Amino acid sequence: MLGLALRMYVEVEVSPAPSLRIDVDGEGSELPGDESHLAARVVRSVLEHDRVALRVRSSIPVSRGLGSSAALAVAAAAAAGASDPLRVGAVFDGHAENAAASVLGGLVAATMIDGLPVARRLPLDARLGYVVVVPDRQLPTKLARSVLPTSVVFADAVFNLGRMGLLIAGLADSSSLLSAAGDDRLHQGARSALFPEAPELLEQLRSAGATVTCWSGAGPALLAICADAEVAKGVEAAAGRALASLSLPGHASVIEPDLEGLVVMA
Amino acid sequence: MLGLALRMYVEVEVSPAPSLRIDVDGEGSELPGDESHLAARVVRSVLEHDRVALRVRSSIPVSRGLGSSAALAVAAAAAAGASDPLRVGAVFDGHAENAAASVLGGLVAATMIDGLPVARRLPLDARLGYVVVVPDRQLPTKLARSVLPTSVVFADAVFNLGRMGLLIAGLADSSSLLSAAGDDRLHQGARSALFPEAPELLEQLRSAGATVTCWSGAGPALLAICADAEVAKGVEAAAGRALASLSLPGHASVIEPDLEGLVVMA
Repeated sequence: MLGLALRMYVEVEVSPAPSLRIDVDGEGSELPGDESHLAARVVRSVLEHDRVALRVRSSIPVSRGLGSSAALAVAAAAAAGASDPLRVGAVFDGHAENAAASVLGGLVAATMIDGLPVARRLPLDARLGYVVVVPDRQLPTKLARSVLPTSVVFADAVFNLGRMGLLIAGLADSSSLLSAAGDDRLHQGARSALFPEAPELLEQLRSAGATVTCWSGAGPALLAICADAEVAKGVEAAAGRALASLSLPGHASVIEPDLEGLVVMA
Repeated sequence: MLGLALRMYVEVEVSPAPSLRIDVDGEGSELPGDESHLAARVVRSVLEHDRVALRVRSSIPVSRGLGSSAALAVAAAAAAGASDPLRVGAVFDGHAENAAASVLGGLVAATMIDGLPVARRLPLDARLGYVVVVPDRQLPTKLARSVLPTSVVFADAVFNLGRMGLLIAGLADSSSLLSAAGDDRLHQGARSALFPEAPELLEQLRSAGATVTCWSGAGPALLAICADAEVAKGVEAAAGRALASLSLPGHASVIEPDLEGLVVMA
Protein backbone atom coordinates (compact mmCIF):
# COMPACT_ATOMS: atom_id res chain seq x y z
CA MET A 1 0.00 0.00 0.00
CA LEU A 2 1.01 3.63 -0.13
CA GLY A 3 2.32 5.91 2.58
CA LEU A 4 3.01 9.63 2.45
CA ALA A 5 5.21 11.44 4.95
CA LEU A 6 3.91 14.86 6.03
CA ARG A 7 5.61 17.40 8.25
CA MET A 8 4.32 16.22 11.61
CA TYR A 9 7.05 14.92 13.84
CA VAL A 10 7.74 12.93 16.94
CA GLU A 11 11.11 13.13 18.70
CA VAL A 12 12.37 10.49 21.10
CA GLU A 13 15.44 10.79 23.32
CA VAL A 14 16.80 7.82 25.22
CA SER A 15 19.31 8.18 28.06
CA PRO A 16 20.53 5.79 30.75
CA ALA A 17 18.62 5.91 34.04
CA PRO A 18 18.28 3.75 37.17
CA SER A 19 14.81 2.69 36.05
CA LEU A 20 12.20 3.52 33.40
CA ARG A 21 11.07 7.14 33.33
CA ILE A 22 8.94 8.65 30.58
CA ASP A 23 8.25 12.30 29.89
CA VAL A 24 5.83 13.07 27.10
CA ASP A 25 5.18 16.55 25.74
CA GLY A 26 2.56 17.44 23.19
CA GLU A 27 0.27 14.96 21.49
CA GLY A 28 -0.27 11.71 23.37
CA SER A 29 0.83 13.19 26.70
CA GLU A 30 -2.43 11.97 28.27
CA LEU A 31 -1.41 8.33 27.73
CA PRO A 32 0.00 6.45 30.76
CA GLY A 33 3.76 7.07 31.02
CA ASP A 34 4.62 3.59 32.23
CA GLU A 35 6.03 0.36 30.84
CA SER A 36 2.89 -0.07 28.70
CA HIS A 37 3.80 3.02 26.66
CA LEU A 38 4.66 2.10 23.07
CA ALA A 39 8.02 3.91 23.23
CA ALA A 40 8.95 1.96 26.37
CA ARG A 41 7.99 -1.35 24.79
CA VAL A 42 9.98 -0.61 21.64
CA VAL A 43 13.05 0.52 23.57
CA ARG A 44 12.90 -2.53 25.83
CA SER A 45 12.74 -4.83 22.81
CA VAL A 46 15.82 -3.17 21.30
CA LEU A 47 17.94 -2.82 24.46
CA GLU A 48 16.57 -5.88 26.26
CA HIS A 49 16.15 -3.76 29.38
CA ASP A 50 14.31 -0.57 30.26
CA ARG A 51 16.67 1.25 32.57
CA VAL A 52 16.25 4.42 30.53
CA ALA A 53 14.78 7.87 30.66
CA LEU A 54 12.59 8.49 27.62
CA ARG A 55 11.71 11.95 26.46
CA VAL A 56 8.99 12.04 23.80
CA ARG A 57 7.83 15.23 22.07
CA SER A 58 5.09 14.70 19.54
CA SER A 59 3.12 16.92 17.19
CA ILE A 60 1.23 13.96 15.68
CA PRO A 61 -2.31 13.64 17.05
CA VAL A 62 -3.00 10.06 18.19
CA SER A 63 -5.84 7.76 17.11
CA ARG A 64 -6.59 9.88 14.06
CA GLY A 65 -5.15 7.68 11.30
CA LEU A 66 -2.08 9.88 11.03
CA GLY A 67 0.40 7.11 11.76
CA SER A 68 1.49 8.43 15.15
CA SER A 69 2.16 4.92 16.48
CA ALA A 70 4.40 3.94 13.61
CA ALA A 71 6.30 7.23 13.78
CA LEU A 72 6.76 6.81 17.53
CA ALA A 73 7.87 3.19 17.20
CA VAL A 74 10.38 4.07 14.48
CA ALA A 75 11.75 7.01 16.47
CA ALA A 76 12.01 4.99 19.67
CA ALA A 77 13.76 2.15 17.86
CA ALA A 78 16.26 4.55 16.28
CA ALA A 79 16.85 6.37 19.57
CA ALA A 80 17.58 3.04 21.25
CA GLY A 81 20.15 2.27 18.55
CA ALA A 82 18.24 -0.35 16.55
CA SER A 83 20.09 -1.29 13.35
CA ASP A 84 16.83 -1.40 11.38
CA PRO A 85 14.27 1.03 12.79
CA LEU A 86 11.93 0.32 9.85
CA ARG A 87 11.73 -3.34 10.78
CA VAL A 88 11.20 -2.65 14.48
CA GLY A 89 8.64 0.07 13.81
CA ALA A 90 6.66 -1.94 11.27
CA VAL A 91 6.61 -5.08 13.36
CA PHE A 92 5.42 -3.18 16.44
CA ASP A 93 2.90 -1.09 14.58
CA GLY A 94 1.77 -3.61 11.99
CA HIS A 95 1.52 -1.03 9.19
CA ALA A 96 4.50 -1.24 6.89
CA GLU A 97 3.51 1.86 4.92
CA ASN A 98 3.33 4.05 8.02
CA ALA A 99 6.72 2.97 9.31
CA ALA A 100 8.21 3.21 5.81
CA ALA A 101 6.96 6.76 5.27
CA SER A 102 8.40 7.69 8.69
CA VAL A 103 11.81 6.22 7.86
CA LEU A 104 12.15 7.07 4.16
CA GLY A 105 10.04 10.22 3.90
CA GLY A 106 8.10 11.17 0.79
CA LEU A 107 5.79 8.74 -0.98
CA VAL A 108 6.40 5.06 -0.39
CA ALA A 109 5.00 1.72 -1.46
CA ALA A 110 5.36 -0.76 1.36
CA THR A 111 3.95 -4.01 2.58
CA MET A 112 4.78 -6.81 4.99
CA ILE A 113 6.32 -9.86 3.32
CA ASP A 114 6.86 -12.92 5.50
CA GLY A 115 6.42 -10.73 8.55
CA LEU A 116 8.98 -8.11 7.56
CA PRO A 117 8.45 -4.72 5.93
CA VAL A 118 9.54 -4.13 2.36
CA ALA A 119 9.44 -0.53 1.18
CA ARG A 120 10.31 1.47 -1.92
CA ARG A 121 10.24 5.20 -2.59
CA LEU A 122 7.96 6.39 -5.36
CA PRO A 123 8.25 9.72 -7.19
CA LEU A 124 6.18 12.59 -5.77
CA ASP A 125 5.53 15.71 -7.83
CA ALA A 126 6.85 18.71 -5.86
CA ARG A 127 4.03 20.92 -7.17
CA LEU A 128 1.35 19.10 -5.20
CA GLY A 129 -0.20 20.72 -2.13
CA TYR A 130 -1.77 18.96 0.86
CA VAL A 131 -4.40 19.75 3.42
CA VAL A 132 -4.95 17.56 6.44
CA VAL A 133 -8.26 17.74 8.31
CA VAL A 134 -7.97 16.56 11.90
CA PRO A 135 -11.17 16.17 13.92
CA ASP A 136 -10.74 16.39 17.69
CA ARG A 137 -12.65 13.12 17.89
CA GLN A 138 -10.47 10.01 18.07
CA LEU A 139 -11.10 6.76 16.23
CA PRO A 140 -9.06 3.85 17.57
CA THR A 141 -7.46 1.92 14.72
CA LYS A 142 -8.74 -1.34 16.20
CA LEU A 143 -12.30 -0.13 15.95
CA ALA A 144 -11.72 1.19 12.42
CA ARG A 145 -10.36 -2.21 11.42
CA SER A 146 -13.23 -4.07 13.06
CA VAL A 147 -15.80 -2.64 10.66
CA LEU A 148 -13.96 -3.85 7.56
CA PRO A 149 -15.61 -6.82 5.86
CA THR A 150 -13.84 -10.18 5.83
CA SER A 151 -14.49 -10.54 2.12
CA VAL A 152 -15.10 -8.16 -0.74
CA VAL A 153 -16.61 -8.38 -4.19
CA PHE A 154 -13.94 -9.42 -6.70
CA ALA A 155 -14.74 -6.44 -8.91
CA ASP A 156 -14.16 -4.09 -5.98
CA ALA A 157 -10.70 -5.54 -5.37
CA VAL A 158 -9.94 -4.99 -9.05
CA PHE A 159 -11.45 -1.50 -8.86
CA ASN A 160 -8.97 -0.46 -6.15
CA LEU A 161 -6.04 -1.95 -8.07
CA GLY A 162 -7.02 0.08 -11.13
CA ARG A 163 -7.28 3.29 -9.13
CA MET A 164 -3.97 2.66 -7.37
CA GLY A 165 -2.07 2.56 -10.66
CA LEU A 166 -3.60 5.86 -11.74
CA LEU A 167 -2.87 7.36 -8.31
CA ILE A 168 0.81 6.43 -8.42
CA ALA A 169 1.08 7.87 -11.93
CA GLY A 170 -0.70 11.07 -10.89
CA LEU A 171 1.36 11.61 -7.75
CA ALA A 172 4.49 11.39 -9.91
CA ASP A 173 3.10 13.93 -12.39
CA SER A 174 0.41 16.15 -10.96
CA SER A 175 -0.76 17.27 -14.40
CA SER A 176 -2.08 13.76 -14.91
CA LEU A 177 -3.67 13.35 -11.46
CA LEU A 178 -7.39 12.55 -11.61
CA SER A 179 -9.97 12.77 -8.83
CA ALA A 180 -11.08 9.26 -9.67
CA ALA A 181 -7.58 7.99 -8.84
CA GLY A 182 -8.50 8.39 -5.16
CA ASP A 183 -11.71 6.39 -5.34
CA ASP A 184 -11.90 3.45 -2.97
CA ARG A 185 -14.32 0.58 -2.58
CA LEU A 186 -12.58 -1.35 0.18
CA HIS A 187 -12.17 0.84 3.24
CA GLN A 188 -13.91 4.16 3.35
CA GLY A 189 -17.50 3.05 2.77
CA ALA A 190 -17.46 0.64 5.71
CA ARG A 191 -15.74 3.16 7.96
CA SER A 192 -18.16 5.96 7.26
CA ALA A 193 -20.49 4.35 9.82
CA LEU A 194 -17.91 5.40 12.42
CA PHE A 195 -17.57 8.92 11.04
CA PRO A 196 -20.82 9.84 9.33
CA GLU A 197 -19.65 13.37 8.46
CA ALA A 198 -16.72 12.06 6.41
CA PRO A 199 -18.42 11.77 2.99
CA GLU A 200 -19.76 15.33 3.26
CA LEU A 201 -16.37 16.67 4.36
CA LEU A 202 -14.58 14.91 1.51
CA GLU A 203 -17.13 16.31 -0.93
CA GLN A 204 -16.55 19.83 0.41
CA LEU A 205 -12.80 19.45 -0.03
CA ARG A 206 -13.30 18.45 -3.67
CA SER A 207 -15.76 21.29 -4.24
CA ALA A 208 -13.09 23.68 -2.97
CA GLY A 209 -10.66 22.38 -5.58
CA ALA A 210 -8.88 19.38 -4.08
CA THR A 211 -8.06 16.86 -6.78
CA VAL A 212 -7.91 13.72 -4.65
CA THR A 213 -9.46 13.30 -1.23
CA CYS A 214 -9.29 10.32 1.07
CA TRP A 215 -9.21 9.19 4.63
CA SER A 216 -5.80 9.42 6.25
CA GLY A 217 -5.15 5.81 7.19
CA ALA A 218 -8.01 4.49 9.28
CA GLY A 219 -9.25 8.03 9.99
CA PRO A 220 -10.87 10.13 11.22
CA ALA A 221 -8.26 12.53 9.79
CA LEU A 222 -8.83 13.26 6.12
CA LEU A 223 -6.36 14.23 3.43
CA ALA A 224 -6.81 16.48 0.41
CA ILE A 225 -4.25 16.40 -2.40
CA CYS A 226 -4.29 19.58 -4.46
CA ALA A 227 -2.76 20.62 -7.76
CA ASP A 228 -0.61 23.23 -6.03
CA ALA A 229 -0.06 25.22 -2.84
CA GLU A 230 -2.44 27.97 -3.91
CA VAL A 231 -5.31 25.54 -4.33
CA ALA A 232 -4.40 23.98 -0.99
CA LYS A 233 -4.84 27.34 0.76
CA GLY A 234 -8.38 27.60 -0.57
CA VAL A 235 -9.12 24.01 0.43
CA GLU A 236 -7.80 24.68 3.95
CA ALA A 237 -10.22 27.58 4.34
CA ALA A 238 -13.13 25.57 2.95
CA ALA A 239 -12.31 22.68 5.27
CA GLY A 240 -12.44 25.02 8.27
CA ARG A 241 -15.87 26.25 7.17
CA ALA A 242 -17.06 22.68 6.56
CA LEU A 243 -16.00 21.58 10.06
CA ALA A 244 -17.85 24.55 11.53
CA SER A 245 -20.99 23.95 9.50
CA LEU A 246 -21.05 20.32 10.65
CA SER A 247 -20.38 21.42 14.27
CA LEU A 248 -17.40 19.11 14.22
CA PRO A 249 -14.55 20.27 16.48
CA GLY A 250 -11.21 19.97 14.75
CA HIS A 251 -8.84 21.85 12.48
CA ALA A 252 -7.59 21.88 8.92
CA SER A 253 -4.04 22.78 7.89
CA VAL A 254 -1.99 23.09 4.78
CA ILE A 255 0.95 20.77 5.31
CA GLU A 256 4.14 20.07 3.38
CA PRO A 257 5.43 16.61 2.57
CA ASP A 258 8.48 15.48 4.50
CA LEU A 259 11.15 14.26 2.11
CA GLU A 260 13.83 13.49 4.64
CA GLY A 261 12.36 10.73 6.74
CA LEU A 262 14.04 9.54 9.89
CA VAL A 263 16.76 11.80 11.31
CA VAL A 264 19.08 10.33 13.93
CA MET A 265 21.10 12.77 16.01
CA ALA A 266 24.08 11.66 18.07
CA MET B 1 -4.35 -2.39 -13.60
CA LEU B 2 -1.05 -2.60 -15.41
CA GLY B 3 -0.32 -3.25 -19.08
CA LEU B 4 3.02 -3.75 -20.77
CA ALA B 5 3.54 -3.41 -24.53
CA LEU B 6 5.84 -6.02 -26.04
CA ARG B 7 7.08 -6.22 -29.61
CA MET B 8 4.29 -8.28 -31.09
CA TYR B 9 2.28 -6.43 -33.66
CA VAL B 10 -0.92 -6.43 -35.62
CA GLU B 11 -1.34 -4.30 -38.74
CA VAL B 12 -4.69 -3.33 -40.17
CA GLU B 13 -5.28 -1.64 -43.52
CA VAL B 14 -8.67 -0.30 -44.50
CA SER B 15 -9.55 0.63 -48.08
CA PRO B 16 -12.84 1.35 -49.82
CA ALA B 17 -14.54 -1.63 -51.47
CA PRO B 18 -17.98 -2.47 -52.86
CA SER B 19 -18.65 -4.71 -49.85
CA LEU B 20 -16.85 -6.17 -46.84
CA ARG B 21 -13.77 -8.25 -47.65
CA ILE B 22 -11.28 -9.47 -45.06
CA ASP B 23 -7.82 -10.92 -45.65
CA VAL B 24 -5.98 -12.16 -42.59
CA ASP B 25 -2.35 -13.25 -42.59
CA GLY B 26 -0.54 -14.78 -39.66
CA GLU B 27 -2.04 -15.31 -36.24
CA GLY B 28 -5.82 -15.51 -36.15
CA SER B 29 -6.11 -16.35 -39.85
CA GLU B 30 -8.21 -19.39 -38.93
CA LEU B 31 -11.02 -17.18 -37.60
CA PRO B 32 -14.03 -16.58 -39.90
CA GLY B 33 -13.30 -13.64 -42.22
CA ASP B 34 -16.83 -12.29 -42.21
CA GLU B 35 -18.82 -9.51 -40.57
CA SER B 36 -18.40 -11.25 -37.19
CA HIS B 37 -14.62 -10.60 -37.28
CA LEU B 38 -13.57 -8.16 -34.56
CA ALA B 39 -11.81 -5.89 -37.06
CA ALA B 40 -14.96 -5.72 -39.18
CA ARG B 41 -17.13 -4.90 -36.19
CA VAL B 42 -14.78 -2.16 -35.03
CA VAL B 43 -14.49 -0.61 -38.48
CA ARG B 44 -18.26 -0.71 -38.96
CA SER B 45 -18.77 1.08 -35.63
CA VAL B 46 -16.33 3.81 -36.64
CA LEU B 47 -17.42 4.29 -40.27
CA GLU B 48 -21.07 3.35 -39.77
CA HIS B 49 -20.81 1.10 -42.83
CA ASP B 50 -18.64 -1.84 -43.85
CA ARG B 51 -18.00 -1.28 -47.55
CA VAL B 52 -14.30 -1.82 -46.98
CA ALA B 53 -11.51 -4.22 -47.73
CA LEU B 54 -9.65 -5.10 -44.52
CA ARG B 55 -6.15 -6.44 -44.55
CA VAL B 56 -4.98 -7.81 -41.21
CA ARG B 57 -1.45 -9.10 -40.54
CA SER B 58 -0.88 -10.29 -37.01
CA SER B 59 2.02 -11.77 -35.09
CA ILE B 60 0.05 -11.88 -31.83
CA PRO B 61 -1.19 -15.38 -30.99
CA VAL B 62 -4.90 -15.31 -30.13
CA SER B 63 -6.60 -16.64 -26.98
CA ARG B 64 -3.31 -16.71 -25.07
CA GLY B 65 -3.74 -13.71 -22.79
CA LEU B 66 -1.45 -11.62 -24.98
CA GLY B 67 -3.99 -8.92 -25.68
CA SER B 68 -4.44 -9.72 -29.37
CA SER B 69 -8.09 -8.57 -29.33
CA ALA B 70 -7.31 -5.19 -27.83
CA ALA B 71 -4.41 -4.65 -30.22
CA LEU B 72 -6.59 -5.60 -33.18
CA ALA B 73 -9.46 -3.39 -32.03
CA VAL B 74 -7.14 -0.42 -31.53
CA ALA B 75 -5.46 -0.93 -34.90
CA ALA B 76 -8.78 -1.35 -36.72
CA ALA B 77 -10.19 1.75 -35.06
CA ALA B 78 -7.14 3.80 -36.02
CA ALA B 79 -7.13 2.44 -39.57
CA ALA B 80 -10.77 3.43 -39.92
CA GLY B 81 -9.89 6.96 -38.80
CA ALA B 82 -11.32 6.91 -35.29
CA SER B 83 -10.41 10.06 -33.37
CA ASP B 84 -9.79 8.08 -30.17
CA PRO B 85 -8.60 4.54 -30.95
CA LEU B 86 -7.96 3.91 -27.25
CA ARG B 87 -11.60 4.51 -26.41
CA VAL B 88 -12.87 2.37 -29.27
CA GLY B 89 -10.41 -0.42 -28.56
CA ALA B 90 -11.04 -0.49 -24.82
CA VAL B 91 -14.81 -0.38 -25.18
CA PHE B 92 -14.78 -3.23 -27.72
CA ASP B 93 -12.26 -5.31 -25.86
CA GLY B 94 -13.26 -4.49 -22.30
CA HIS B 95 -9.66 -4.39 -21.04
CA ALA B 96 -8.45 -0.84 -20.63
CA GLU B 97 -4.88 -1.88 -19.85
CA ASN B 98 -4.52 -3.94 -23.02
CA ALA B 99 -5.83 -1.19 -25.27
CA ALA B 100 -3.76 1.41 -23.40
CA ALA B 101 -0.52 -0.56 -23.78
CA SER B 102 -1.30 -0.96 -27.50
CA VAL B 103 -1.87 2.76 -27.97
CA LEU B 104 0.72 4.27 -25.61
CA GLY B 105 3.40 1.57 -25.62
CA GLY B 106 5.60 0.83 -22.62
CA LEU B 107 4.20 0.28 -19.15
CA VAL B 108 0.77 1.72 -18.46
CA ALA B 109 -1.70 1.98 -15.61
CA ALA B 110 -5.21 1.94 -16.98
CA THR B 111 -8.75 1.25 -15.95
CA MET B 112 -12.29 1.89 -17.11
CA ILE B 113 -13.97 4.82 -15.36
CA ASP B 114 -17.65 5.38 -16.12
CA GLY B 115 -17.32 3.11 -19.13
CA LEU B 116 -14.34 4.90 -20.65
CA PRO B 117 -10.65 4.03 -20.48
CA VAL B 118 -8.27 6.20 -18.48
CA ALA B 119 -4.58 5.47 -18.96
CA ARG B 120 -1.24 6.81 -17.78
CA ARG B 121 2.32 5.86 -18.71
CA LEU B 122 4.53 4.62 -15.90
CA PRO B 123 8.33 4.56 -15.94
CA LEU B 124 9.93 1.32 -17.16
CA ASP B 125 13.61 0.62 -16.50
CA ALA B 126 15.32 0.03 -19.85
CA ARG B 127 17.65 -2.56 -18.33
CA LEU B 128 14.86 -5.11 -17.79
CA GLY B 129 14.63 -8.17 -20.03
CA TYR B 130 11.48 -10.13 -20.85
CA VAL B 131 10.68 -13.69 -21.84
CA VAL B 132 7.24 -14.68 -23.04
CA VAL B 133 6.20 -18.34 -22.90
CA VAL B 134 3.42 -19.13 -25.35
CA PRO B 135 1.81 -22.58 -25.16
CA ASP B 136 0.18 -23.76 -28.38
CA ARG B 137 -2.91 -24.47 -26.29
CA GLN B 138 -5.50 -21.72 -26.29
CA LEU B 139 -7.46 -20.53 -23.28
CA PRO B 140 -10.47 -18.40 -24.18
CA THR B 141 -10.61 -15.27 -22.01
CA LYS B 142 -14.28 -15.94 -21.23
CA LEU B 143 -13.38 -19.30 -19.75
CA ALA B 144 -10.45 -17.80 -17.84
CA ARG B 145 -12.78 -15.17 -16.40
CA SER B 146 -15.44 -17.72 -15.51
CA VAL B 147 -13.22 -19.43 -12.93
CA LEU B 148 -12.58 -16.23 -10.98
CA PRO B 149 -14.46 -16.06 -7.67
CA THR B 150 -17.20 -13.46 -7.19
CA SER B 151 -15.72 -12.45 -3.86
CA VAL B 152 -12.29 -12.58 -2.29
CA VAL B 153 -10.89 -12.45 1.21
CA PHE B 154 -10.30 -8.85 2.25
CA ALA B 155 -6.71 -9.58 3.17
CA ASP B 156 -6.08 -10.98 -0.32
CA ALA B 157 -7.33 -7.78 -1.93
CA VAL B 158 -4.97 -5.84 0.33
CA PHE B 159 -2.17 -8.31 -0.46
CA ASN B 160 -2.42 -7.56 -4.18
CA LEU B 161 -2.51 -3.79 -3.57
CA GLY B 162 0.69 -4.07 -1.53
CA ARG B 163 2.45 -6.08 -4.22
CA MET B 164 1.31 -3.73 -6.97
CA GLY B 165 3.00 -0.76 -5.33
CA LEU B 166 6.27 -2.67 -5.04
CA LEU B 167 5.93 -3.88 -8.65
CA ILE B 168 5.47 -0.36 -10.02
CA ALA B 169 8.51 0.81 -8.00
CA GLY B 170 10.60 -2.13 -9.20
CA LEU B 171 9.68 -1.77 -12.87
CA ALA B 172 10.83 1.86 -12.65
CA ASP B 173 14.14 0.86 -11.05
CA SER B 174 15.12 -2.72 -11.71
CA SER B 175 17.71 -2.72 -8.93
CA SER B 176 14.81 -2.56 -6.47
CA LEU B 177 12.61 -5.18 -8.18
CA LEU B 178 11.68 -8.08 -5.91
CA SER B 179 10.28 -11.48 -6.87
CA ALA B 180 7.56 -11.01 -4.28
CA ALA B 181 6.34 -7.95 -6.15
CA GLY B 182 4.80 -10.32 -8.69
CA ASP B 183 2.87 -12.39 -6.16
CA ASP B 184 -0.85 -12.58 -6.74
CA ARG B 185 -3.76 -13.92 -4.69
CA LEU B 186 -6.63 -12.90 -6.93
CA HIS B 187 -6.24 -14.46 -10.37
CA GLN B 188 -3.57 -17.04 -10.90
CA GLY B 189 -4.54 -19.55 -8.24
CA ALA B 190 -8.07 -19.94 -9.56
CA ARG B 191 -6.87 -20.11 -13.16
CA SER B 192 -4.29 -22.80 -12.53
CA ALA B 193 -7.15 -25.33 -12.71
CA LEU B 194 -7.32 -24.46 -16.42
CA PHE B 195 -3.55 -24.71 -16.90
CA PRO B 196 -2.17 -27.13 -14.33
CA GLU B 197 1.40 -26.87 -15.65
CA ALA B 198 1.53 -23.13 -14.99
CA PRO B 199 2.83 -23.15 -11.40
CA GLU B 200 5.67 -25.54 -12.36
CA LEU B 201 6.57 -23.45 -15.41
CA LEU B 202 6.60 -20.22 -13.39
CA GLU B 203 8.80 -21.91 -10.80
CA GLN B 204 11.25 -23.02 -13.52
CA LEU B 205 11.43 -19.48 -14.88
CA ARG B 206 12.34 -18.17 -11.43
CA SER B 207 14.87 -20.94 -10.90
CA ALA B 208 16.53 -19.87 -14.14
CA GLY B 209 16.91 -16.35 -12.81
CA ALA B 210 13.73 -14.47 -13.68
CA THR B 211 12.94 -11.90 -10.99
CA VAL B 212 9.19 -11.64 -11.48
CA THR B 213 7.00 -14.22 -13.19
CA CYS B 214 3.29 -14.07 -13.88
CA TRP B 215 0.54 -15.05 -16.22
CA SER B 216 0.23 -12.82 -19.25
CA GLY B 217 -3.32 -11.49 -18.87
CA ALA B 218 -5.73 -14.41 -18.54
CA GLY B 219 -3.12 -16.85 -19.90
CA PRO B 220 -2.05 -19.38 -20.85
CA ALA B 221 0.95 -17.31 -21.99
CA LEU B 222 3.37 -16.57 -19.16
CA LEU B 223 5.76 -13.66 -18.69
CA ALA B 224 9.15 -13.55 -17.04
CA ILE B 225 10.69 -10.21 -16.10
CA CYS B 226 14.45 -10.41 -15.75
CA ALA B 227 17.12 -8.10 -14.36
CA ASP B 228 18.69 -7.73 -17.81
CA ALA B 229 18.88 -9.13 -21.32
CA GLU B 230 21.60 -11.64 -20.41
CA VAL B 231 19.47 -13.20 -17.70
CA ALA B 232 16.52 -13.25 -20.10
CA LYS B 233 18.53 -15.38 -22.57
CA GLY B 234 19.11 -17.99 -19.89
CA VAL B 235 15.46 -17.90 -18.87
CA GLU B 236 14.39 -18.36 -22.49
CA ALA B 237 16.51 -21.51 -22.76
CA ALA B 238 15.22 -22.85 -19.44
CA ALA B 239 11.64 -22.15 -20.50
CA GLY B 240 12.16 -24.18 -23.67
CA ARG B 241 13.49 -27.10 -21.61
CA ALA B 242 10.60 -26.78 -19.14
CA LEU B 243 8.00 -26.89 -21.92
CA ALA B 244 9.68 -30.00 -23.32
CA SER B 245 9.93 -31.73 -19.96
CA LEU B 246 6.22 -31.10 -19.38
CA SER B 247 5.43 -32.30 -22.95
CA LEU B 248 3.70 -28.98 -23.47
CA PRO B 249 3.82 -27.78 -27.10
CA GLY B 250 4.70 -24.12 -27.29
CA HIS B 251 7.64 -21.76 -27.46
CA ALA B 252 9.52 -19.27 -25.33
CA SER B 253 11.11 -16.08 -26.66
CA VAL B 254 13.09 -13.17 -25.41
CA ILE B 255 11.06 -10.12 -26.37
CA GLU B 256 11.70 -6.39 -26.18
CA PRO B 257 9.20 -3.88 -24.83
CA ASP B 258 7.53 -1.66 -27.39
CA LEU B 259 7.88 1.98 -26.38
CA GLU B 260 6.19 3.52 -29.39
CA GLY B 261 2.63 2.28 -29.16
CA LEU B 262 0.18 2.85 -31.96
CA VAL B 263 1.63 3.93 -35.30
CA VAL B 264 -0.74 5.35 -37.89
CA MET B 265 0.51 5.51 -41.48
CA ALA B 266 -1.23 7.65 -44.08
